[in-house]
Amino acid sequence: MVTNGKRVLEFSECEAVYVSQTFLLRYVTGLEAENGCAVVDETGATLYTDMRYMEAAEKLLQGTDVTPVLYKQDEVLKRLAGYKTVGISFEQTTHAEFLTLEKAGVKLVNIDDKLAQAMTVKNEWELANIAKACEIAEKAFLALLPEIQEGMTETEVAALLEYNMRKLGAQGLSFETIVAFGPHAAVPHHETGTTKLCFGDEILIDFGCKVNGYCSDITRTFLFGDDGKHEAFKNAYAAVLKAHELAKEKITSGMTGAEADAVARDYLKAQGYGELFTHSLGHGIGLNVHEYPSISPKNTAGKLVDGMVFSDEPGVYKAGEYGIRIEDTVTLKDGKIKSFMSLTDRNLIIL
Amino acid sequence: MVTNGKRVLEFSECEAVYVSQTFLLRYVTGLEAENGCAVVDETGATLYTDMRYMEAAEKLLQGTDVTPVLYKQDEVLKRLAGYKTVGISFEQTTHAEFLTLEKAGVKLVNIDDKLAQAMTVKNEWELANIAKACEIAEKAFLALLPEIQEGMTETEVAALLEYNMRKLGAQGLSFETIVAFGPHAAVPHHETGTTKLCFGDEILIDFGCKVNGYCSDITRTFLFGDDGKHEAFKNAYAAVLKAHELAKEKITSGMTGAEADAVARDYLKAQGYGELFTHSLGHGIGLNVHEYPSISPKNTAGKLVDGMVFSDEPGVYKAGEYGIRIEDTVTLKDGKIKSFMSLTDRNLIIL
Repeated sequence: MVTNGKRVLEFSECEAVYVSQTFLLRYVTGLEAENGCAVVDETGATLYTDMRYMEAAEKLLQGTDVTPVLYKQDEVLKRLAGYKTVGISFEQTTHAEFLTLEKAGVKLVNIDDKLAQAMTVKNEWELANIAKACEIAEKAFLALLPEIQEGMTETEVAALLEYNMRKLGAQGLSFETIVAFGPHAAVPHHETGTTKLCFGDEILIDFGCKVNGYCSDITRTFLFGDDGKHEAFKNAYAAVLKAHELAKEKITSGMTGAEADAVARDYLKAQGYGELFTHSLGHGIGLNVHEYPSISPKNTAGKLVDGMVFSDEPGVYKAGEYGIRIEDTVTLKDGKIKSFMSLTDRNLIIL
Repeated sequence: MVTNGKRVLEFSECEAVYVSQTFLLRYVTGLEAENGCAVVDETGATLYTDMRYMEAAEKLLQGTDVTPVLYKQDEVLKRLAGYKTVGISFEQTTHAEFLTLEKAGVKLVNIDDKLAQAMTVKNEWELANIAKACEIAEKAFLALLPEIQEGMTETEVAALLEYNMRKLGAQGLSFETIVAFGPHAAVPHHETGTTKLCFGDEILIDFGCKVNGYCSDITRTFLFGDDGKHEAFKNAYAAVLKAHELAKEKITSGMTGAEADAVARDYLKAQGYGELFTHSLGHGIGLNVHEYPSISPKNTAGKLVDGMVFSDEPGVYKAGEYGIRIEDTVTLKDGKIKSFMSLTDRNLIIL
């Protein structure tokens, strides 16, 4: 386990950093604890937690720079009062908690941008967890394919896929699995439901799982039999696949998020699908399934660097007809894109 | 679908209410929308959402008092500026969002207590969803029992149970399933892992699922075969079961949370288990798996009323040896406790 307290403190430019949100606790201390918090200063990190987590914390934190201590609000506030500046996340801290922290009488500094910068570049331990989460997702998908039968509902397909991921060791889901049959695939955030699968339907599945808190995110679109009515779908599929592959080939460290997005977007525009590509090319992935960087036309300032992890997910959506999205979780290594997905085919699968 | 915008507005005692958190959006408008918000005033509720959710929102909100509109921050702030007071949840609103809302120049009033009061009493639609979530959890558990085999890991058992819930129509989990074999059961928040099941192990499973956002929460403790070494466990089980049943018999509307907690706690103390019952008797359940009311010695002011939903979950934990928790999701009806759990046996199961 690698703890990131020192890294956060350095980026923060504050005398101390305070975090209390589950994923930030995991980032800073390696552990999640409900009702807990952590304070980092130059001497190391303290995890304040309650009795329920104390035994596990003592065992798991041996050999790290994190000391577990029983949580008492008064003591935490007294400690914070001793610093000149304390960095916190304004985006993650509730206003109620902010009011409590203010009582310490210390200057609270918003470190959201600096936290995003610190967290967006992953170390080897983080990359290994994401790789594992991706491997589980792919293996679960491969085990799902032969089980898909006519008449199954979207929810049943999701259930089976999630079961496969859990059996393979996933800690949980990155987000609620999206399974969309037929025209439902045209709704990027379709709510998985009770629609039954028919011969000739397209299937879009957007899913992912967590390993040690780290997420994978993957989408595959395929056909459940070919009823011969999928010409427009197949043309669009070929365009989306090409856009997905161009992104992998051409995106390099040093590009802005907007430049990276344009690699896929320009191609889809040239093919006549510009209007139907209704979202960003990608988003950062880590302890959150959506984090920095944004691979989007709006991100004209943020430059991509080695060690960032994000999605490559061009999509084309024709309302009432079809929706196609092909998504890998990828990272930048030695300036180039490296995909975490190697087991599943991106060419059109027809079951 | 029943929307609760009017109810929240009445409780708030403000001219308008603003919410943006997923579960509060669901409560107020019936729908969840990422990056969305809702404003309620005496004319009704407006759901501000983005293009991705617009089509679904228009369809699902027909006939309700909620109007979906495309989200634009400027327009929302301008609208808020027109009110004298706007109620928001300080507990749920991030400090960053608070700073944005402040720009509207309107008085922001903390309605956390009033929201908790409004949400803690459930209407028929909410009770029906919770009942369904409980039924699915129980059926999934019954389907799990014959599948449990020696050598299975905690994670595999969790995976199977979660699969059963999803297949039965659960939208997702209420929380990460806890499966604890043997002495792991003594850790109330044990992290489900790779430990393998042996003959004679006790098994504790704490789980639940969601239906239309509403949660169920249930714990069962049982034996995987009887190796004859479970005398202390069986004695403690009988005491926990009796405490669980006493709570169902004796808790009535009008009691405080502390009085309700004492029903089970006093019995366990009298049986010599007082020190080993290390948590509250229960917590409120609704769109959150932990909400108001708290059935705890600390809640000496809050009175229980009809329509509240909470857990009845006494537990006894002997470190390194065993842990027992028996939990139902229950409600108060006509002044008395009514359990949502009727399918699974609370008597000790020995597989």
